[in-house]
Amino acid sequence: MSHYRTFTAHDAVAYAQQFGGLADPASLVEAQEVGDGNLNLVFKIFDTQGVSRIIVKQALPYVRCVGESWPLTLDRARLEAQTLVEHYKHCPQHTVKIQHYDAELAVMVMEDLSSHRIWRGELISGVYYPQAASQLGEYLAQTLFHTSDFYLHPHEKKAQVARFINPEMCEITEDLFFNDPYQIHERNNYPAELEPEVAALRDDAQLKTAVAALKHRFFSHAEALLHGDIHSGSIFVADGSLKAIDAEFGYFGPVGFDVGTAIGNLLLNYCGLPGQLGIREAASGRDQRLADIVELWNTFAERFQWLAREKTRDAALAFPGYASEFLKKVWADAIGFAGTELIRRSVGLSHVADIDTIQDKEMKLSCLRHAIELGKALIVLAPRIDSADELVARVRQYG
Amino acid sequence: MSHYRTFTAHDAVAYAQQFGGLADPASLVEAQEVGDGNLNLVFKIFDTQGVSRIIVKQALPYVRCVGESWPLTLDRARLEAQTLVEHYKHCPQHTVKIQHYDAELAVMVMEDLSSHRIWRGELISGVYYPQAASQLGEYLAQTLFHTSDFYLHPHEKKAQVARFINPEMCEITEDLFFNDPYQIHERNNYPAELEPEVAALRDDAQLKTAVAALKHRFFSHAEALLHGDIHSGSIFVADGSLKAIDAEFGYFGPVGFDVGTAIGNLLLNYCGLPGQLGIREAASGRDQRLADIVELWNTFAERFQWLAREKTRDAALAFPGYASEFLKKVWADAIGFAGTELIRRSVGLSHVADIDTIQDKEMKLSCLRHAIELGKALIVLAPRIDSADELVARVRQYG
Repeated sequence: MSHYRTFTAHDAVAYAQQFGGLADPASLVEAQEVGDGNLNLVFKIFDTQGVSRIIVKQALPYVRCVGESWPLTLDRARLEAQTLVEHYKHCPQHTVKIQHYDAELAVMVMEDLSSHRIWRGELISGVYYPQAASQLGEYLAQTLFHTSDFYLHPHEKKAQVARFINPEMCEITEDLFFNDPYQIHERNNYPAELEPEVAALRDDAQLKTAVAALKHRFFSHAEALLHGDIHSGSIFVADGSLKAIDAEFGYFGPVGFDVGTAIGNLLLNYCGLPGQLGIREAASGRDQRLADIVELWNTFAERFQWLAREKTRDAALAFPGYASEFLKKVWADAIGFAGTELIRRSVGLSHVADIDTIQDKEMKLSCLRHAIELGKALIVLAPRIDSADELVARVRQYG
Repeated sequence: MSHYRTFTAHDAVAYAQQFGGLADPASLVEAQEVGDGNLNLVFKIFDTQGVSRIIVKQALPYVRCVGESWPLTLDRARLEAQTLVEHYKHCPQHTVKIQHYDAELAVMVMEDLSSHRIWRGELISGVYYPQAASQLGEYLAQTLFHTSDFYLHPHEKKAQVARFINPEMCEITEDLFFNDPYQIHERNNYPAELEPEVAALRDDAQLKTAVAALKHRFFSHAEALLHGDIHSGSIFVADGSLKAIDAEFGYFGPVGFDVGTAIGNLLLNYCGLPGQLGIREAASGRDQRLADIVELWNTFAERFQWLAREKTRDAALAFPGYASEFLKKVWADAIGFAGTELIRRSVGLSHVADIDTIQDKEMKLSCLRHAIELGKALIVLAPRIDSADELVARVRQYG
């Protein structure tokens, strides 16, 4: 990492000219840093017409919001770029394209998606993208199937598992999802009014046993190369288009974690909508979110089974019926992981705008309580929720 | 591997003098190659008194029984030595001690166990070691707990998973356990009279779905550093002593695989005893084997839970009650893997002396049929066999 330096806007333009793969690199003239995260610099590179043409993203060696006191491996840029490159191989239509990547600078050059919007913002505003849920299901099925034991040669799979070992980023998930909300921790972040609900999380034996099981599966079930953080804020949408970005949490883990993170974020939106929209709009948005979840799961499961039927290379796993058996495990995992996402986004360090931006204090508390209660129910009931329709029924029950 | 050469007896003596860690290395004068496997040279090194003092084991770059036509990675010597060194750290009383190891020569120098006998032979002859079953349970609990997510720091665990990636040896298991017996394959090896039973394996959808699930768990559940081949032929016993050897299949896999391999081999002995001993001795030996299995599991489970209570470092997995929840998964896995061991040792390439040495042809066929039927039942019924006592009842039912 000896050549690492933090990019200026000028560096970013020069780098994009060199590595952007554009036919007219000299037309790139200006950069604007647009990163709203805490971990990376993100430059949009504009041409002489003021059109954003390409993105330069650089990992910072520390978490920005806490100054330089929380160092974080630059190797996550490699992991992000390599995860996206792998996913792009299998699902180019829904994965941002990486043009170039440099390990020492922890920098990557990638496709500009200015024509797209972050899905979370659109979901909050009530802007509906009718294909987004099924496209996300397609992305998950293609990327997770093609990096699983169904498809990869066992030698290749094992080499990939080693290549994608991601201790520091996994540790963030291990702590924020599975530890902090269930103990007293300075990183936790919730209004004092919620203390009774949060204290109850720490005292719920059934819940904590189920969370331990989920964490253990996150630790040990190397089923496929996950995105690792596939929430609505790491997804760009446009009419008829969906692109996953931000894969620095990529590693080989349980398929249900990615599916559950995606579902969990749709449920967080469901919980937050009454604070974001008028009564009628919120109700219809909520129905839409539940329909989205059903659509996401059905598309994922159908495509995964189709891929299993057509492309499984492993002789034993190819047995007809096994893939659907495996998907039962994925579904139960997904419901449980979705529950942990609901809770950690309500109680833990990192929140979601779907609820955090609600102005009315009582409404916000009510939405947070809803997310916590629903999260608890999903974690504990996961093994007994047999289908997407059953999930919808449960969600309405905890509404 | 440029310095690799196959050792002569003379090389082995010189090597043992240099690396055996003995106080009187000059007393080592003679070597005898005693390997009965197909994969390695094993030299006993004798002193001037004719006493065997130390062992030199060297991996061969091919499988001996088929000449040099089946090459096999020499890296397995590293994996074996490192697995045994890790296991020795956590359970020195039941793991052979590695004195020295050299990657280029694929050679290791280890403790002489001439005072011990291979457990399989003793089980076949009806020689009973009253502590062996509980000692094996202790070995499994100590080695598997201390290399699991309960105990290892997540960064250390991930580094160890990468270090113990073992593609070639795992592939042997993947093929021999989970593929070959369930398809027509030239490696399969069974008497023509068993064709109906073997054909039935290929046509049993429920069985093949369950075998696919077991293979998938073998592929992807990196729960602990397994021995990987802990059958009664890789265990030395003496009065009050038990030592595991031969860990070249070591990798991070499902805890239930090691437990199931151990149980499966006791069940193979159970199936073979009527062909090895007189009626009364065989009946009493069989009762003893079932008692051994209960003892093995109870010791393992109690010790694992005790270790989980006393030494778990992970905050979430430390929650009281989670370890026993995890052991339910281990138990179900173990029963299933035991079933695959019964079948692959009856139908596949590699057999066990417990049945293979039976002279009477009809008796041998009957024992093989028994092993196949019992194996099938265990694989399919695994999720419904809730306890060791229930397992014993099922085994008697399929007797």
